[in-house]
Amino acid sequence: MNPTETLDTTSEILPGGDTKNDLLWRTSGPESSCSENREHRGKPAPCHRHCDFSSIYSKDLLPNPDGEGPTQRFLQALVHILLAHVSSTFDRTCKVLDFHHPHQLMEGLDGFSLELPDQPENLEQLLVDCRDTLKYGVKTGHPRFFNQLSSGLDVIGMAGEWLTSTANTNMFTFEISPVFILMEDVMLKKMREKVGWSPEEGDGLFCPGGSMSNLYSILLARYKFFPEVKLRGMAAIPKLALFTSEHSHYSIRKAAGVLGMGVENVFLVKCNERCADICRLCKPAVAPQQGLVPFYVSATAGTTVYGAFDPLGDIADVCESHGLWMHVDAAWGGGLLMSKKHAGKLRGIERAASVTWNPHKMMGVPLQCSAILVRQKGLLQECNQLCAEYLFQPDKHYDVTYDTGDKSIQCGRHVDVFKLWLMWKAKGSEGFGSQINCCLENAEYLFNKLENRADFELVFKTKPEHSNVCFWYIPDSLRAAPRGPEWNRKLHEVAPKVKAKMIEEGIVMVGYQPLGEKANFFRCVFSNPATSREDVDLLVDEIARLGHDL
Amino acid sequence: MNPTETLDTTSEILPGGDTKNDLLWRTSGPESSCSENREHRGKPAPCHRHCDFSSIYSKDLLPNPDGEGPTQRFLQALVHILLAHVSSTFDRTCKVLDFHHPHQLMEGLDGFSLELPDQPENLEQLLVDCRDTLKYGVKTGHPRFFNQLSSGLDVIGMAGEWLTSTANTNMFTFEISPVFILMEDVMLKKMREKVGWSPEEGDGLFCPGGSMSNLYSILLARYKFFPEVKLRGMAAIPKLALFTSEHSHYSIRKAAGVLGMGVENVFLVKCNERCADICRLCKPAVAPQQGLVPFYVSATAGTTVYGAFDPLGDIADVCESHGLWMHVDAAWGGGLLMSKKHAGKLRGIERAASVTWNPHKMMGVPLQCSAILVRQKGLLQECNQLCAEYLFQPDKHYDVTYDTGDKSIQCGRHVDVFKLWLMWKAKGSEGFGSQINCCLENAEYLFNKLENRADFELVFKTKPEHSNVCFWYIPDSLRAAPRGPEWNRKLHEVAPKVKAKMIEEGIVMVGYQPLGEKANFFRCVFSNPATSREDVDLLVDEIARLGHDL
Repeated sequence: MNPTETLDTTSEILPGGDTKNDLLWRTSGPESSCSENREHRGKPAPCHRHCDFSSIYSKDLLPNPDGEGPTQRFLQALVHILLAHVSSTFDRTCKVLDFHHPHQLMEGLDGFSLELPDQPENLEQLLVDCRDTLKYGVKTGHPRFFNQLSSGLDVIGMAGEWLTSTANTNMFTFEISPVFILMEDVMLKKMREKVGWSPEEGDGLFCPGGSMSNLYSILLARYKFFPEVKLRGMAAIPKLALFTSEHSHYSIRKAAGVLGMGVENVFLVKCNERCADICRLCKPAVAPQQGLVPFYVSATAGTTVYGAFDPLGDIADVCESHGLWMHVDAAWGGGLLMSKKHAGKLRGIERAASVTWNPHKMMGVPLQCSAILVRQKGLLQECNQLCAEYLFQPDKHYDVTYDTGDKSIQCGRHVDVFKLWLMWKAKGSEGFGSQINCCLENAEYLFNKLENRADFELVFKTKPEHSNVCFWYIPDSLRAAPRGPEWNRKLHEVAPKVKAKMIEEGIVMVGYQPLGEKANFFRCVFSNPATSREDVDLLVDEIARLGHDL
Repeated sequence: MNPTETLDTTSEILPGGDTKNDLLWRTSGPESSCSENREHRGKPAPCHRHCDFSSIYSKDLLPNPDGEGPTQRFLQALVHILLAHVSSTFDRTCKVLDFHHPHQLMEGLDGFSLELPDQPENLEQLLVDCRDTLKYGVKTGHPRFFNQLSSGLDVIGMAGEWLTSTANTNMFTFEISPVFILMEDVMLKKMREKVGWSPEEGDGLFCPGGSMSNLYSILLARYKFFPEVKLRGMAAIPKLALFTSEHSHYSIRKAAGVLGMGVENVFLVKCNERCADICRLCKPAVAPQQGLVPFYVSATAGTTVYGAFDPLGDIADVCESHGLWMHVDAAWGGGLLMSKKHAGKLRGIERAASVTWNPHKMMGVPLQCSAILVRQKGLLQECNQLCAEYLFQPDKHYDVTYDTGDKSIQCGRHVDVFKLWLMWKAKGSEGFGSQINCCLENAEYLFNKLENRADFELVFKTKPEHSNVCFWYIPDSLRAAPRGPEWNRKLHEVAPKVKAKMIEEGIVMVGYQPLGEKANFFRCVFSNPATSREDVDLLVDEIARLGHDL
């Protein structure tokens, strides 16, 4: 523990009170510019019963027979730290991150050491470690964190995840997860309804991330056309070809590698300006080539970088006429199904055989929450079941059709549904819709703003379809210079340099990447309902300030 | 909300106080036998500032500019519910579960409805839903929950998971998970040290469960021997054969199916009494048969049902002499490496090329926490990387060797390390060791007890190697009857019948299954440090009481 800091465990949490929570930690560290810290610094704690955690150890907590009091006090002290983090996440006077290089964190900072001891440490040290873990991390819920498709900190979703960890159970059987198993059933049915499938159709699972959901789609397609592959392997079936666009997520290629189909047998269809020109290119491509049998197309609804939507209806036509499995990777775009205004962008998704949809992206659900939805009932079970009798006893006394474990390629499976279920109760379908509309309005606001700035250049001249806005910052030194390979080379260096300075300062975060022939450009994405237009203004001003002299 | 219940949101959480937390919920429901409920029923709440959540909605919480107060009060009310659940988990007068059939929960119970609304519900309803979700669930941390390899509710681990959800970030890059990425690095190094590899060797990842960790081991072995498979698929390499014992976890076969090798190409080596007689059978088996090329052996350290350890040293000899990849599935047994007394059971594990070790099993870490450890540095990265530039920019300003995302077959990856890291700080290596020793002592206590009971029969006459104790209950009606197929058929029905009654009563939970020729038997496993000898006594008495008249 840093000797310049004092752990104050004396303040009171008042569930029914009106006063603001008092700061648990008085710190002179790098976050002392936070308004929250300023406001509370030095203020006397309202409650003076002192709890000394330095002589208490984890063995003194429950299930120790005298553990109830210490357990409650420890968890309450932790909750104090977590609540302070939640508050500072939404406090614009707090930084998004307090950057340190890997070697600095590895060596240990101000008493924060990552090393694992042989002997137990006391609870005071653990609370300090918890505070420091948050302090040196990144506030992904900060209104000025634009770095990832998943952003925001939904209080209800977080509450749901606290409950999930307290329940600490597993999704394999109704027997040990009765409530969560049924919630998943209800939720997947609702999501399939939003996709547009009839209530009689369909199945699904929550998976550990969109890459795994996409892997399931290929696995299912392969089994559907070549069920013998399960027992006999790829040697028993023809060589397969998969199709997706060059802007699709890399998980399609990764999964093809894992599943033994080979990364090079995924054909990346050329894109138009933004989205797959798949209807033009798919027809010849599906003809057998190099002895391969085409069987699977993954269309993207919301590409990672551009946020573009492939023409789902046209792709469905191609898949139907050639008898191909149509998957829609709507990991990023699926959320738009919740918005009456934007759902039309996914028209044609109802014709898919499977859909990936990550509520942890556009719907703001805490990580992880990704679903694979499958149109054909029973296929998941047939494809994956091995009937381990120690887990899935057929002679149980309840309706075992709810035991989902054998549908999965996992055995134990984390409970990912509860946070989404609770958020859905809290917002209703309509609340999700409004939240998503606001994110897309922010994107349009940024787009319009950049259109009118001479020091920025948009990657596309047309309005964003999703909440992705892609742009270059053009420093003074490049503005008047003649364009060409050298200019491009210089432009390519601008975004990384701006980003490096941005991370050191820590007041805003946005990502960049090259794509195809295009030099490094910024990609700003909006999925955080906490973000306002002022935050968008600040982002633009910050990039210009940091990049001006490059 | 059930009209017979009152939501009391007026009590106070006193982080520094000495008094016991007051019951938030006064209920006349099925758990009213809980001492906690009895004790607090009707007791006046200590604090009378009332907070009416029925007029507050999620939109009133942060990031709403006036949201800080309501957010803190809502989360504090939730924490009240969670703390009550934690207390009742360790309270032996509370049931392990309050069983309802799927259709009962689906139809809705006492105002608890799983249905998803279009319009938002108020925070009062959400808190009721949270309470009910826990109420109708299973207390997997209860001292009398013996049903699964994962049991227990470690308070520090749970606290770690609360923090993880509050931090809400992702493991792909150091950029957005600086602390957790380094913690994972430090933790995996420590785990490899426990396996016995030199500090220079090795790599690893936390995966969503042991099945995925086992899948990684096969994926890596295949890539190691046939790197062309990544790009060109299984068609470019020979047909492969895998070896494991007939008692190994089904995930080995499942993964072989997923990876395109075929479930039938996993050869299940016969077992002796308990463990793989792999050294006797492996030598002829590894000779090419049916045109297959042997490349991989998975030895099990702690089988799922018997808790047996394969002879790792002998298997290592076979693998070395035939040039096969040796994997050790120590998902269940890996925890014993933390115990000086029991680590010797895994002797030979240091010769493995890869190891699966699930701290969420024997080490009592909350779900999920599973690691794949790999001896060859760099192989994970080579095998799985696709270098998506939007995520893994090579021109970042920090040391990008810490970016783990491209080692993984997932893209986003949940932070599974923090809870384990915090528990390790709290217990030290030695604390884990004692905890595991206690679990194995409980197993020995049960074994000794059953040896002396005429109404029980042990599946093995020798002491358990791990904490699994397998046994039959023999009701009076079968005790004197002549043994034979009919007797076996009747015995087979005993465990399911006892289990059905047990679940209806809900005071204890233990699993059963058949195995090979053996009729359904109970498998009791100990991984919960809350379990005492009295709980073991109760389990035995309960089975005898419920099964006596069968």
